[in-house]
Order: sequence, then C-alpha cells, then structure tokens
Amino acid sequence: MKILNRIKALKQVFEQKGFDGFLIANNLNIFYLSGVEGASCLLIPGKSENTIYVYGVNYEQAKADGKGFDVELVGRDENLMAKIAKRAKALGLKKLAVDALNSETYCSLAKDTRGNTRIKAQGNLVWELRKVKDEEELKLMRKAGELTVTGMKAAHETLDPGLEEIQVAAEIEYAMRRKGSWGIAFETSVASGVRSAFPHGGCTDRKIRAGDLVVIDIGAKYHHYCSDMTRTFVAGKSSEKQMKLYRIVHEAQSKAHEAIRLGAKGRNVDTVARNVIEKAGYGEYFVHGLGHGIGLEVHEPPSLSPVSKDKLAVGNVVTNEPGIYLVGFGGIRVEDSVLVGKRAAEKLTQGLNTLETER
Amino acid sequence: MKILNRIKALKQVFEQKGFDGFLIANNLNIFYLSGVEGASCLLIPGKSENTIYVYGVNYEQAKADGKGFDVELVGRDENLMAKIAKRAKALGLKKLAVDALNSETYCSLAKDTRGNTRIKAQGNLVWELRKVKDEEELKLMRKAGELTVTGMKAAHETLDPGLEEIQVAAEIEYAMRRKGSWGIAFETSVASGVRSAFPHGGCTDRKIRAGDLVVIDIGAKYHHYCSDMTRTFVAGKSSEKQMKLYRIVHEAQSKAHEAIRLGAKGRNVDTVARNVIEKAGYGEYFVHGLGHGIGLEVHEPPSLSPVSKDKLAVGNVVTNEPGIYLVGFGGIRVEDSVLVGKRAAEKLTQGLNTLETER
Repeated sequence: MKILNRIKALKQVFEQKGFDGFLIANNLNIFYLSGVEGASCLLIPGKSENTIYVYGVNYEQAKADGKGFDVELVGRDENLMAKIAKRAKALGLKKLAVDALNSETYCSLAKDTRGNTRIKAQGNLVWELRKVKDEEELKLMRKAGELTVTGMKAAHETLDPGLEEIQVAAEIEYAMRRKGSWGIAFETSVASGVRSAFPHGGCTDRKIRAGDLVVIDIGAKYHHYCSDMTRTFVAGKSSEKQMKLYRIVHEAQSKAHEAIRLGAKGRNVDTVARNVIEKAGYGEYFVHGLGHGIGLEVHEPPSLSPVSKDKLAVGNVVTNEPGIYLVGFGGIRVEDSVLVGKRAAEKLTQGLNTLETER
Repeated sequence: MKILNRIKALKQVFEQKGFDGFLIANNLNIFYLSGVEGASCLLIPGKSENTIYVYGVNYEQAKADGKGFDVELVGRDENLMAKIAKRAKALGLKKLAVDALNSETYCSLAKDTRGNTRIKAQGNLVWELRKVKDEEELKLMRKAGELTVTGMKAAHETLDPGLEEIQVAAEIEYAMRRKGSWGIAFETSVASGVRSAFPHGGCTDRKIRAGDLVVIDIGAKYHHYCSDMTRTFVAGKSSEKQMKLYRIVHEAQSKAHEAIRLGAKGRNVDTVARNVIEKAGYGEYFVHGLGHGIGLEVHEPPSLSPVSKDKLAVGNVVTNEPGIYLVGFGGIRVEDSVLVGKRAAEKLTQGLNTLETER
C-alpha cells in the first residue's frame, strides 16, 4: 500500500537523524501519511504501531479510512498533549520529532514530556517527501489540471462586458463541478478592469466593461489534490498596449518553462522570467515571485522566487506565473501548473493561450 | 466610519488592560479592523497613527483599501518582526499586545523587542469585539443566509437517486453564485448513505441510492461573511426509522432555538438539545457540540458545547446543529445560523423543514 510506504520513507529519514519517533499534527500531513481526514495527531514510533488520535466527531470516519492504524478516541475533556506524552514515555521514546505545533501546543507538549522525551520541530522532513509526487498523486493532479482547463474554457466562452465578476465565477465553477471536480483549490478569482492590477483581486459584484483586462485565477480539486491556472482575457477587443504587455508576460512564461528542470535552482528559474520583464522595462511591476509548489495545498514548497533556496527535483509540481501589474491600467498574469520530469517539464494545465475573447 | 470605530473600541479595551499598543497579525483581524486584505500586520499604537505592513504583492490593493491608515511596504528581504520592533521602540511602546503569532514569529518578536517593549498574547480581546456583530455585518450575514437557503432549495429540487454527490454540489453552488454569492464559506458537503454517518463527510463521486439519507451542509459567503446551514433529505421515499430519527433531531433543534437568548450559557443551550436526543435513547450518537459562532470565519467564538465557557450576548451569531449518526445506517443533522437578539433569536437560515424529496 502506497501510504504505508510513505510512513516507511519518513521513518528511514527520522531515524537517520537520530529520532525514535515522529508526532504529526498538521492535518494534511496526517492525511498524506494515513489517508485519514480530520484527525488531531498521528504518532509514528520507530519501532511500534502507528496511532491516530481523533475526537469523537471524526472517530468513526477515521476508523473506516485508517486501515492498518491504531485509531484512538480522544475525549472532550482529555488533554491530548498529556495523553501523547504519556504514550511516548510508555514507548520509551527519547527523541521525538514534531511537525507543525502552534506555540501553545508545543509548550504544553514540551512540559508534559520533560525528563522523558525531547521534542524538536522537524516539519521540513515531511515536506521533503510531500514535495516529490508519486504516480498515484500525479494521476490525481493531472485530472485536477484537466478540470481546471475546463473551467478556463467556460470563462473564455462566458466573458462578456456587462457581466459581474461573480457571474463569470459561477460558470467556471459549475463547468468544473460538472466534469467531476471535488471542489475548488482556492477562492476563484475574476479580477477585472482596475482591479486586475491587484494580484490577489478575488472576485466581486463589479460589472465588467468592454476593453477591461480580466485576470482569471482558478483551480479545481480532484480527490484532495489542487490545481492552479491563470489566464488574462480582454472583455471585447484588446488594445495595442494590452497586447504588448501580454506578449511580454507570455514570453517570460515560455522562457521560464524551458528553465524548469531537474536540478534547476528556484531562484534562477525566477530570474529567467524576471529578466524578460525587466528588459521590456516593466521589472518593478512584477511584484511577486514566479511560482510555488502545489499538491495537497495550493501553496507549498518548493518555491520559485528571488529568495528561494529550493532546487527542483523530478516529481515536483510548481506554478509558473509571471505578471505585470499597472495600477490604474490593469494587470496581466499567465500561469500554469508544471511537473518537473526526468527530461522535460510537463504542463498539467495548458491551452487558452490568447488575450482575445472576440467571438 | 464603522471600521475606525472598531479600532477605537479595541484601543479602549487594551489601554484599560495596561497596554499602550496592539500588534494584529491574523489576516481576518486585520480585515475586520482596517478593511484591508492580504496585509501581514497592523500596528495600533494607543497614541499615534495606525500602520499596515504589507508585502509588494498586495501593496497597491492595501493602499487602495486602507484609507486612513499608514500603509508600509515590506521588502522581500526585510525582517518584518525586526522592523516592527524598531517602530515600537521609536514610538516608546512599553507593553504591546499581540493577537495570533505562531511560535516562531512570537519568539522572533520577543527577541527583537527585548529591553524595550514587552509583548503579550491578547487575541481574545479582538474576539470580544468580533463576537458581537454590528448592523453593517448583520446586513451581510442576512444576505449570506438567504443565498444559502437558495442553495438548499436547489439541493432539494435536484436530489435524486443515481446522481453523484458532487453533481448535487454543482447545482447548489451554481444556484448560490447566480443569486450573488461571493463564494463558499467552507467545502460544500453532500454526504450520502453510509457516508452520512460521518459528520464531516464532505462530498465525493459516490452515486446516491434510493432511500439514502443525504446530509447537506453548505454555506454561501457574501462580501466576506459566512453562513452555515444543514438539512438532511432522503433520496426518494423515507423509512419509518429515518423519519423517527429526523423528528428527534428536529425537536432537539427547536428546543435549543428557544434557549438561544441573551445571557444563556453556551453549555446550557447544548444541554437542552442533548437532553432531547438522550431521552430518545440516542445520546451516544450525538458526537459533537451543538454549535459554534460564525462571522468572517465559519468557526469562531462563542461555542455551544458541553465544554463551552461562553455566555451569549446580543449580536452573537451561532449555529444550532444537533445530529444523530448511526454507523452503517446513516446520519441526520439539521442546522441553522441564528442571531441572538434583545428579545428573541432570529434565524438567518430557515425553511426546507422536511426529510422528504418525493416530488
């Protein structure tokens, strides 16, 4: 079973680092390692059974989904960290890695384990695994990508002056759902006119006007995997300036796509896109990093940005999304989700390479 | 302006507690107090200008939305906590309240402010304000409620054996969007058959069968405010046992509704519903608390549960959602969002009080 292989891989890594157990508290980490949703903690001792801790509301579901795990009910009045500290002591764990506890929980666990078990934050070890998608995950991500393209096609067909942004969002989400989307990976964004100059414009009841730039940033979910795609269209006929900016952004994205490969530094891939935009004179208007990893979360490692310390590996999925944002005029962004392969990079979203919607 | 009144109210409270400034880091707290989305921090000194700290990607939008605030750009390489510590020192702040920093950020700020400014977590002070909705907020929440009812009507009309759960979700979300929804407050849940016994069933591609219980838990968003409503329907004709369980849950909800009033303890309102279900012999199958506050977040204070320490006040909005979940058989939950008023409680979601879908 794939999932137990993930735990095996994590064990190998944490034991190498001198830990004899790992406490997982992040919801999606728990899901990734066990297939169980809504649990509070997953304790992975190096040498004994893996235990899922879950409150009553999700207990039955955890039992149904958590085959091969010991599923432990946490009572409403129980102190979960004290319970885990006790279990760690009983198992003789001396050095326990933890992933993502908030400050309060961390302090509480540190107090409860004092004298028996040392704890240390090691969330990055789980990220090292999650960053590299396996075939099972890629199947779901490819499907999420296809569904997202369906939504983008609906946007392209629907977009017309006079519509509200949220009406376009309605058609996008409906099209994705009807083809089998399990939901949205993040809030659908249809940012039009002056609002398109705000990279996180979201969508409102603003009426789209003829000639508006409209930045459409959407993502379907399939099973629990996310997709992320942006296209910019003009409602009606585009202007020369809009077309000029679009070509720059498009070129930046194409060049960056060629740079997305095994071993490339995230920082350098960003530079490739940034150079194109800078050379065209719009460097200061590309106000964000080039991209981010994507998987169970819409934003996860590795990152492509001027401050990234990541290096790309086969199985990473990242977004490639350069943009130019001119306040008062509008913005243009083009984005695809891209898989790093052994030879070339593979787009999980693609098509709709146009600024025009004139029909 | 309403929003500046909120800051005024917060100042009054934190100054009474001996603080001379408040650092807000939670995104929705910043939005609540400033109307700005996507900012990283909001510094509210007792005696000088309020500053919003924001990275480049959201800087222009923050400037457009943050009228009356000093909007400060944070560079990609800048250390935000060091920057804030420096500003706090320059302002002579001695005791700074903070809302919701994670352990790493808290430690970093504590280090940077050492010797000049003492910091202390006081997130509950903002919750005291956010818990009580003002008229502006209630207008949005009433509309979010109406939109949610529209979605539930679509579910009721659509539901038929043979459909996949996600197909029903498609019609619900489309109906809400078309009436003006700004998005969903949480993942639409359409849990059918044996899956309905899982309170957080979500929705999948499972095909709904004749006679299935289907728990539909949905919420529209209007502007940034959430709604939350659940109905349980039977696809096709209901059985006697299904109807019996439905009546118990419905009675529990009605009795609890009467108990939702100014001054009531959250714990006691839960007990009212729980007693009905216990008396009917299903106490152990009501596996969660009765309800939670709702507003900018779908789950926020105050809570209605056996361990709640909250007391209801005028302007609180809470959910009232008893349920019975029988593994292998199915589950039933009925939920409305309810406003605590001076005299009576007002349902922000209502109608569709039936188990039946036979048309």
